[in-house]
Amino acid sequence: MSKFSMIVFSGTEDKMIPVGVLSQAAAAMGYEVRVFVTGWALLRFLRNPPPPTWPKEFEHYVPRLAKGMEAAKAPTWADMLRQARSMGAKVYACSMMSQAMGLSKEDYDPSLVDDVVGAATFLQESEGGQVIFI
Amino acid sequence: MSKFSMIVFSGTEDKMIPVGVLSQAAAAMGYEVRVFVTGWALLRFLRNPPPPTWPKEFEHYVPRLAKGMEAAKAPTWADMLRQARSMGAKVYACSMMSQAMGLSKEDYDPSLVDDVVGAATFLQESEGGQVIFI
Amino acid sequence: MSKFSMIVFSGTEDKMIPVGVLSQAAAAMGYEVRVFVTGWALLRFLRNPPPPTWPKEFEHYVPRLAKGMEAAKAPTWADMLRQARSMGAKVYACSMMSQAMGLSKEDYDPSLVDDVVGAATFLQESEGGQVIFI
Repeated sequence: MSKFSMIVFSGTEDKMIPVGVLSQAAAAMGYEVRVFVTGWALLRFLRNPPPPTWPKEFEHYVPRLAKGMEAAKAPTWADMLRQARSMGAKVYACSMMSQAMGLSKEDYDPSLVDDVVGAATFLQESEGGQVIFI
Repeated sequence: MSKFSMIVFSGTEDKMIPVGVLSQAAAAMGYEVRVFVTGWALLRFLRNPPPPTWPKEFEHYVPRLAKGMEAAKAPTWADMLRQARSMGAKVYACSMMSQAMGLSKEDYDPSLVDDVVGAATFLQESEGGQVIFI
Repeated sequence: MSKFSMIVFSGTEDKMIPVGVLSQAAAAMGYEVRVFVTGWALLRFLRNPPPPTWPKEFEHYVPRLAKGMEAAKAPTWADMLRQARSMGAKVYACSMMSQAMGLSKEDYDPSLVDDVVGAATFLQESEGGQVIFI
């Protein structure tokens, strides 16, 4: 089985859309999907996330994009990721960055995160497959 | 034939340079090159693109970089991508994000974009090769 | 031997952490590691680097992160990258962007950079392995 893995770091709300779309599409195509969440992106996976942020350079396009996503009845990135998980995708929070940010497994939304693991575990599980860094 | 694929999302002008350089270099080396344009990057591929933006953190280096690129007689990213296309590279605009942004195939510069397709089509064409997310 | 390669472009200080972590972890696991530094990230590899910058969207979390990294006694990204180099990782500065920024081999910290090479050389060395773009 082909593998498709993502390291999700950036954490602005716009970059969460491809996390949802690609995990869902790859899982539906039969890929073994692994998502390793680290950096600022960890904040988007909390039970109580802070308000979303958007990149300063494109903030003025956000209302147009939000309206378009709604009109297209596009599911949220979180719902797409949940669909991917229901098809076997695994989502891991980075143990080192969780510790550095003072976050533990209980802080993460259990509908989005499977476990807290280290980078070496992720590299092992993704070995031999495609990996992207978002 | 080895495959080299790019998902181009970010859309600030600086990140378009590696899109041009890597697509041109990979195509010249005989790779099968696929570029999937989505997110804010779609704006750079329009017939009538908005003015370019640069990341706020490095804006003050832009004049130095622009002068250096000119002195080095470096081609623009768009010209490098056109060269890549002339060697067989394909450039796709993401159908979902195009819809969400209210953009259709006619809005894209035909010298830069081959077609509007979905993420699943891109994943199929890039299967088994290297993929980066810019 | 599996290959793990990184194109490091972004240059904000936060994104240097995964450069250190992933290069060190991959090298320790026996991967052939190649790091191609380009764009704004070149500034972080200078003998005399400018002060670090952080993404505007997450600046207010930086003190918390810095304190957490210190409490966790996490090594700096530069020390992790030096460890990776001691295990065989190679770090290259992009020749085209170096020229455009007016930088030459002597400007780079020799404890961090092996050589100045072109994108084609990097693509050749990373062929057939995993590549991420940071």
